[in-house]
Amino acid sequence: MTETTNALPDFSKGQGLLPVVAQDAASGAVLMMAYMNEESFQETISTGRAVYYSRSRKRLWRKGEESGNVQRVKEIYVDCDGDSILLKVEQAGGAACHEGYASCFYRRRTAGKWEVIGERVFDPNAVYGHPKKST
Amino acid sequence: MTETTNALPDFSKGQGLLPVVAQDAASGAVLMMAYMNEESFQETISTGRAVYYSRSRKRLWRKGEESGNVQRVKEIYVDCDGDSILLKVEQAGGAACHEGYASCFYRRRTAGKWEVIGERVFDPNAVYGHPKKST
Repeated sequence: MTETTNALPDFSKGQGLLPVVAQDAASGAVLMMAYMNEESFQETISTGRAVYYSRSRKRLWRKGEESGNVQRVKEIYVDCDGDSILLKVEQAGGAACHEGYASCFYRRRTAGKWEVIGERVFDPNAVYGHPKKST
Repeated sequence: MTETTNALPDFSKGQGLLPVVAQDAASGAVLMMAYMNEESFQETISTGRAVYYSRSRKRLWRKGEESGNVQRVKEIYVDCDGDSILLKVEQAGGAACHEGYASCFYRRRTAGKWEVIGERVFDPNAVYGHPKKST
């Protein structure tokens, strides 16, 4: 079954910004959560590279533009309500997180505390040349 | 390494609401995206069941309260910026989506259109007794 509606995703539901989950296409690991506006969504489709909208920098954020750790988009999904997006990606460099971890979700709650369970793939200071600000 | 900070997740970053990804603990499938406020996060921790905050109903949403399809929380992760949450869950009934699909992300972009690739696990009308509104 194919739906022809072009109203998906519905960016008006998030006042122009919708949350996006990036999942590693091979391992299934959830890599990160970010946001897209309509423009970044369209550029993601046309280029095949994940392009987000940085809320702190208030501009398009071409993932990997500084680190080189781009995300090649293999599949794009939209959810039932049309207000969130799932990308299955191939993560260049093996790390999605600006802190140098494979996944931004490198801390797990254990006995009431947050335990770092991810292994650092790169040193953020070496890659960015400065402490990387959050996006 | 264990961090003792209690400032995570930082709900102030999302004006009280943070996006949450629920992932099937066994299959790795991304099941849904929802939101939590501090109260729903605390209740999730204390009960071991996923509790979200419904933006449309403006109240706590104990996942499965109507359908019975509760989510048993196996692991909780927080991201680098402390502004999104990942749950690894055991999904009762095999379906997270109010439309009856295993995952809310049952539509994949194919050749410029959205193609339904999920299989319906249940009939929403039979489960809810009425067409289910989005959450």
